[in-house]
Amino acid sequence: MDTLSNPILRVLEDYKAAVLAKDLEAFVALYDQDVQVFDMWGVWVYRGIAAWREMAASWFSSLGSERVIVEFNSPHSIVTQDLAVIHVFVTFTAVTAEGVVLRSLDNRLTMTLKQRSGEWKVVHEHTSSPIDFDTTKAIFKR
Amino acid sequence: MDTLSNPILRVLEDYKAAVLAKDLEAFVALYDQDVQVFDMWGVWVYRGIAAWREMAASWFSSLGSERVIVEFNSPHSIVTQDLAVIHVFVTFTAVTAEGVVLRSLDNRLTMTLKQRSGEWKVVHEHTSSPIDFDTTKAIFKR
Repeated sequence: MDTLSNPILRVLEDYKAAVLAKDLEAFVALYDQDVQVFDMWGVWVYRGIAAWREMAASWFSSLGSERVIVEFNSPHSIVTQDLAVIHVFVTFTAVTAEGVVLRSLDNRLTMTLKQRSGEWKVVHEHTSSPIDFDTTKAIFKR
Repeated sequence: MDTLSNPILRVLEDYKAAVLAKDLEAFVALYDQDVQVFDMWGVWVYRGIAAWREMAASWFSSLGSERVIVEFNSPHSIVTQDLAVIHVFVTFTAVTAEGVVLRSLDNRLTMTLKQRSGEWKVVHEHTSSPIDFDTTKAIFKR
């Protein structure tokens, strides 16, 4: 597959910055109005930006003084004129206000992006960890 | 998003037929040599057709005389010249040789397809169910 191209790289960098800052508006701005998200936690599907904004607001407010550092690894992207797809591994690391690591979680992430009026927006996101019914420890690094 | 278009529809139909027939060659033929799969079960990532073929061979042989009926619901696809993406809900229903329903499982599926030499092949697939740590019952319909 193609190497990581700039429009997608920018979206990933903006995602990291928005999560670290717990900046709801910056986070929501990455997504299309009609985004559909298959998220790892609890909910079957988030349909539309209002539902996804509510998830992000709840996530950020649940963190209190903690912050979340996002790292992306092994991205594979395909970019065409107005459509781009990427799949990548993501590590979410929660740290205290002082920077002490509390916990870390690995995810698999697939995103579809469309270009509209020169801007790339996420129209679909799918995150998961594989399920192991014997133990759920494989889901967590620590 | 666009309605379901023919090349993707064909791949989904071929997927259903291959699984119902437990036809390993037909199943593997849907995928690109360099396919990367984020599958729901156990394995972090399948890289390349050999690893994915091994998964399918193991799956089909584990069924014995059972068969698996695949149903797709609420597909959303975007098709451009040589790149297509789809996300859709999938129900896998295992039945006995006599057609008696044994169990049923709902998945969320995202696929990326590329056209090469006039043929569409799956280059990336991501399947999951949302995780509920209190109970895992939400994963199963029955």
